[in-house]
Amino acid sequence: MRENGVKKIWARGGAVLNGWLSVPSAFSAEVMAHVGWDSLTVDLQHGVQDYLSLVPTLQAISTTAVTPLVRVPANEPGIIMKCLDAGVYGVICPMVNTRQDAEQLVQWCRYPPAGTRSFGPIRAALYGGSDYAQAANDTIAVMPMIETEEAVKNVDAILSVPGIDGLYVGPVDLALSMGLRGALDPTEPAVWSAIERVLQAARTHHVYAGVHCATPENAVKMIQRGFQFVSVMNDTYFMTTGASACVRAMRQGLGTA
Amino acid sequence: MRENGVKKIWARGGAVLNGWLSVPSAFSAEVMAHVGWDSLTVDLQHGVQDYLSLVPTLQAISTTAVTPLVRVPANEPGIIMKCLDAGVYGVICPMVNTRQDAEQLVQWCRYPPAGTRSFGPIRAALYGGSDYAQAANDTIAVMPMIETEEAVKNVDAILSVPGIDGLYVGPVDLALSMGLRGALDPTEPAVWSAIERVLQAARTHHVYAGVHCATPENAVKMIQRGFQFVSVMNDTYFMTTGASACVRAMRQGLGTA
Amino acid sequence: MRENGVKKIWARGGAVLNGWLSVPSAFSAEVMAHVGWDSLTVDLQHGVQDYLSLVPTLQAISTTAVTPLVRVPANEPGIIMKCLDAGVYGVICPMVNTRQDAEQLVQWCRYPPAGTRSFGPIRAALYGGSDYAQAANDTIAVMPMIETEEAVKNVDAILSVPGIDGLYVGPVDLALSMGLRGALDPTEPAVWSAIERVLQAARTHHVYAGVHCATPENAVKMIQRGFQFVSVMNDTYFMTTGASACVRAMRQGLGTA
Amino acid sequence: MRENGVKKIWARGGAVLNGWLSVPSAFSAEVMAHVGWDSLTVDLQHGVQDYLSLVPTLQAISTTAVTPLVRVPANEPGIIMKCLDAGVYGVICPMVNTRQDAEQLVQWCRYPPAGTRSFGPIRAALYGGSDYAQAANDTIAVMPMIETEEAVKNVDAILSVPGIDGLYVGPVDLALSMGLRGALDPTEPAVWSAIERVLQAARTHHVYAGVHCATPENAVKMIQRGFQFVSVMNDTYFMTTGASACVRAMRQGLGTA
Amino acid sequence: MRENGVKKIWARGGAVLNGWLSVPSAFSAEVMAHVGWDSLTVDLQHGVQDYLSLVPTLQAISTTAVTPLVRVPANEPGIIMKCLDAGVYGVICPMVNTRQDAEQLVQWCRYPPAGTRSFGPIRAALYGGSDYAQAANDTIAVMPMIETEEAVKNVDAILSVPGIDGLYVGPVDLALSMGLRGALDPTEPAVWSAIERVLQAARTHHVYAGVHCATPENAVKMIQRGFQFVSVMNDTYFMTTGASACVRAMRQGLGTA
Amino acid sequence: MRENGVKKIWARGGAVLNGWLSVPSAFSAEVMAHVGWDSLTVDLQHGVQDYLSLVPTLQAISTTAVTPLVRVPANEPGIIMKCLDAGVYGVICPMVNTRQDAEQLVQWCRYPPAGTRSFGPIRAALYGGSDYAQAANDTIAVMPMIETEEAVKNVDAILSVPGIDGLYVGPVDLALSMGLRGALDPTEPAVWSAIERVLQAARTHHVYAGVHCATPENAVKMIQRGFQFVSVMNDTYFMTTGASACVRAMRQGLGTA
Repeated sequence: MRENGVKKIWARGGAVLNGWLSVPSAFSAEVMAHVGWDSLTVDLQHGVQDYLSLVPTLQAISTTAVTPLVRVPANEPGIIMKCLDAGVYGVICPMVNTRQDAEQLVQWCRYPPAGTRSFGPIRAALYGGSDYAQAANDTIAVMPMIETEEAVKNVDAILSVPGIDGLYVGPVDLALSMGLRGALDPTEPAVWSAIERVLQAARTHHVYAGVHCATPENAVKMIQRGFQFVSVMNDTYFMTTGASACVRAMRQGLGTA
Repeated sequence: MRENGVKKIWARGGAVLNGWLSVPSAFSAEVMAHVGWDSLTVDLQHGVQDYLSLVPTLQAISTTAVTPLVRVPANEPGIIMKCLDAGVYGVICPMVNTRQDAEQLVQWCRYPPAGTRSFGPIRAALYGGSDYAQAANDTIAVMPMIETEEAVKNVDAILSVPGIDGLYVGPVDLALSMGLRGALDPTEPAVWSAIERVLQAARTHHVYAGVHCATPENAVKMIQRGFQFVSVMNDTYFMTTGASACVRAMRQGLGTA
Repeated sequence: MRENGVKKIWARGGAVLNGWLSVPSAFSAEVMAHVGWDSLTVDLQHGVQDYLSLVPTLQAISTTAVTPLVRVPANEPGIIMKCLDAGVYGVICPMVNTRQDAEQLVQWCRYPPAGTRSFGPIRAALYGGSDYAQAANDTIAVMPMIETEEAVKNVDAILSVPGIDGLYVGPVDLALSMGLRGALDPTEPAVWSAIERVLQAARTHHVYAGVHCATPENAVKMIQRGFQFVSVMNDTYFMTTGASACVRAMRQGLGTA
Repeated sequence: MRENGVKKIWARGGAVLNGWLSVPSAFSAEVMAHVGWDSLTVDLQHGVQDYLSLVPTLQAISTTAVTPLVRVPANEPGIIMKCLDAGVYGVICPMVNTRQDAEQLVQWCRYPPAGTRSFGPIRAALYGGSDYAQAANDTIAVMPMIETEEAVKNVDAILSVPGIDGLYVGPVDLALSMGLRGALDPTEPAVWSAIERVLQAARTHHVYAGVHCATPENAVKMIQRGFQFVSVMNDTYFMTTGASACVRAMRQGLGTA
Repeated sequence: MRENGVKKIWARGGAVLNGWLSVPSAFSAEVMAHVGWDSLTVDLQHGVQDYLSLVPTLQAISTTAVTPLVRVPANEPGIIMKCLDAGVYGVICPMVNTRQDAEQLVQWCRYPPAGTRSFGPIRAALYGGSDYAQAANDTIAVMPMIETEEAVKNVDAILSVPGIDGLYVGPVDLALSMGLRGALDPTEPAVWSAIERVLQAARTHHVYAGVHCATPENAVKMIQRGFQFVSVMNDTYFMTTGASACVRAMRQGLGTA
Repeated sequence: MRENGVKKIWARGGAVLNGWLSVPSAFSAEVMAHVGWDSLTVDLQHGVQDYLSLVPTLQAISTTAVTPLVRVPANEPGIIMKCLDAGVYGVICPMVNTRQDAEQLVQWCRYPPAGTRSFGPIRAALYGGSDYAQAANDTIAVMPMIETEEAVKNVDAILSVPGIDGLYVGPVDLALSMGLRGALDPTEPAVWSAIERVLQAARTHHVYAGVHCATPENAVKMIQRGFQFVSVMNDTYFMTTGASACVRAMRQGLGTA
């Protein structure tokens, strides 16, 4: 089976630089697959994406060596198994708040006896290879999101579920759940303290920690604190900021800003 | 009929800052419609666009006050009239090299007696208003591209065709047609000289001049030379450069660049 | 944040005239957005719609001042939160039969501390404005459907859940659940009695009542009884009845009916 | 080969009641295919349609016995042959103004030796049957549009081209080309006179005449004058008028009109 | 209401030959609808399909007399009811392991009083007929999948739920759940023994048994054992094996294999 | 620039085994890209394909090393240049009957000074590499179809146009144009004689000859005669024949054929 680039980087102690795809276009995905990311996550939760845009997007990513991941919209079996059959190499799942949530997530991501995933890797075997059935359980990364106060409280119970490879912190939802102002680059001490708690649990349970970041500087800082998987904003953010800066520069150059 | 924002800016002597849409996604178009452009051109020639992506893209643009334009793939009647019926307020047409080319373009863009455009503004009247039939000929901007040595030679014959509002210079194709290296921000004196020739003809024939640019600085310079319509690169360019810079900044911050 | 037109009409004591979109086409949606409705509901339950047709449909609606709403397919978190992120200003949710159903619905529609909605209003902030995070909980309308005998029995428990703005009666399902013949314009006394019970509860709990209607006359009657949100049939109904009448008129005119 | 319902009605001296599809949705097409039309024309010229919406639309029509037709965007070989391969049973072609235009149209619609249509009826043979190659030339209807003053002048030359089965009058374009106000239900004597001229030529050349109409009454009148193929407005017209009337009725009923 | 071809074959004691659609293309579905299958199942679980590809696929099938079925992605109400409204005549549901699972499935597939399906057969009534509401409960086939060791253990409890017409065995998932190697054409005695157990229960509860097969020979054998509904592989399997054999034959013919 | 696999095989004297894509689905294209073809041609002429299905199909092919080609619908500049910008590595163009046809085709496929192709390789440069502008003229294969009696008569004039790399024989259209029965595996001596004439001209002008074939045996025979590029039927043919054979085998096994 084709190797999982994310796990390979983790195995050598490195940090994965992950891009984030919100635009439901395989063409913009192919563009993003050529700029140097290690992996790309198709966001079916907050992105303008669904299963029928996921498949061509995965094909676009598969024209390169970038590793394809998904964030599913919710911890629901139908869509999770469909994404896996489409060939994602990792599942980031929002709002995993309890051990039971984590156990269900693993059930749906792993073939028996590790789980109850149903067999039918229609595109996954094209992408992964003919030994997909045998190797998938060891290859696919399962990454619950730790993004609520409740999840932080239960983090040890969650991360000790067998079959979990990583976790993903959503700093905005985490802060909001604590009654604080949401920010991708957290400033609140209580949020930092929760993040430290999560990082500590990740180390204890030998699970890789990921986090969504606001800037490359923020991402580097997070890696230095122990995260080994960072995403910075998303595809439209880069388009927006670049285009805005261009328009502003022209208006300033013309004295019409 | 809803006013043409491009013509309004021209009328007051201003320069139109035009964005360029290559991604066949109404969502990314809506994003681009919120960053400050005066107009947006859906590129059916070199963009990953066709009529069926044009329509939702125009709808996305129409959620804002930005003026919708199109670059058609070729000087062919079927697609030109379809774009107009879909509600574009301006047509940029590639490779208009002769007076006959220009006359045909105008024929297809204007209702009788100014042309032979067929009547059926299915979405255009929704967007433009119920008096579209009466006002369209005066509202829609027709902009042939002057982008070959032959077109420069024929520029007076082209621009003197009644019904032409503007022109659009494609610096890369122009340089290539002259046997020179193509560059959006031209450096070859012969290209500059051709551009000056085109600008002069525009002034003579009271036609507004537009040009595709490489950077906001380049665009400002072009406006200062007399252009009143500038585009800078396209949507994917901003995504690519922003994302590349982000990845590079992270690798440098981590010492793994 | 852009105001919610539906709530504005409610606030001044008026009734919302709501159109219903079943055709998965942004073009027919744009057509419907120009005929005078106050709001349009994209029907993901019984319409031929899904998330990927919702987004361009919302963009089409957003070319006008009509307020965009959705009926979700079921009381499930993934799709509800995706619709909200896409920019709907109200959620009509089928088959809310118990207080627990209503509490879950509110959870998924409201940011903390009122609920557990995850943050990421990708198109909603484009449409609503940059203060979406702060204002969304007060702006978005949540409307459970009261459409079973069980729901009528539990209507006080349902409507007293904090965060519910309105209710929506489905007369056909309501009648069927009572073992009666389904009809949009109810004739059965038992159905009328249930509807009166629901209207009474709406008044008690300061919740706005909506209902699906068969004809404009039926809708006016419902408004006179106290409903402040009415829908009449759907987009295809108008197409079908108009086209059928046209064909019939021609066959009669020709004596071939 | 499956019979052409349009030709069958013509053969028995009847008039074809034709519906018009502008919405790029196979679902709304299926709805229109159930209301009683004899044939449905997918409008690739002024409708919001293109080849990739034509194919599912034809499939939707093919769930019924309604005969599928197309109006192509222009007299261009690529798209005409693609529509035929997709299974249309008739081609309405705009702006056929000269005998040469008509000869080209026939060339592209007929297999050798009657024309130069290329062989590959990929969906047409599924729909038409395995003897499509042998029977297509006799089955498919070719209908040039007579919609300019020039076409009326050349109408005998156009209709005498072998292989033309019908003609289609576009009253609005015809009036505009004559410098008159465009109207689907013509009122100008000069337009009526031109239409009579066309009808006379149709009789002379044994060609069936069709026309686009504003109302069923107008259509009946046209049939009584000699037309054997009438279309009334289009799909969105019925949706718009029905929905508008509904909204108006409610506002009047409420006294808020 | 249009008859259910599957139930008709069952009623006369025959076996249904069912094709399997994984390609999200209405055109390839139409092709498959012309090769002789009794029914076609659109696979929303392991196929590259979702609701928005289901609808045009059903339209393509409906151009023929082939009976349209669906395999839903999971036992979830939203998608099951959407598929029914789109006009499927049978629902194959994966992973029905307990009596409660079966009861829920029936609830969502049947109108009151047999279940709680919500009313709104938007395309189903076009396809099925105007008496759909009255006849649907008796016409639509409900077929839970028996594909785990747990389901086999509970098979009597599952099949005795009123409203279940058939069952469908997934041999691969069944074997995997038993800790054995998965194979469509089972070889393990324990799997055979489980299948016999299921067949016996089907007879006891007067339920029709279906199974997924690897080859036509395997399917015939299964029918001879008592199955009355067989599928062989899927659409892409036939494409792949045919194309592979063709390439191989050429390379061998050229001596370059 | 990424090498052209077709030209590489030609350069070493081999024959290209080319698959043919008619289904507008990137998924079925990806399936076809895994069975061993050297190249795949997306058929925009007789396939159910258009530009907007071409792009994702090319992405699907680009997940493998298979070389992507297109057959354009007609010898028209707009669509030819759009296909090239999308990243095809070869253009098969129907109905090239004269030297002028061939010259136009080359004009549109080559950058100056060899032609007048406009610059903007939006996806082609992603796929081909950053030196696309410099290397494209030497890399892209241009292959006119010789498929009429007229083209055979003009074959030397056509093939001597600079910039033509190959030719492609359409045996069915060729036979039809000669007034003979069309057959992919020709049997008429006159057709064979025309094909020999074409092959001879190909040798004279150092142009590679391709042909569409009915079976692998037919293809091998054609290669042995001198063709170096063969296609066998198309994707749906393999699906149809495989599925038909399966159904037939079951009916025979059951004695119900």
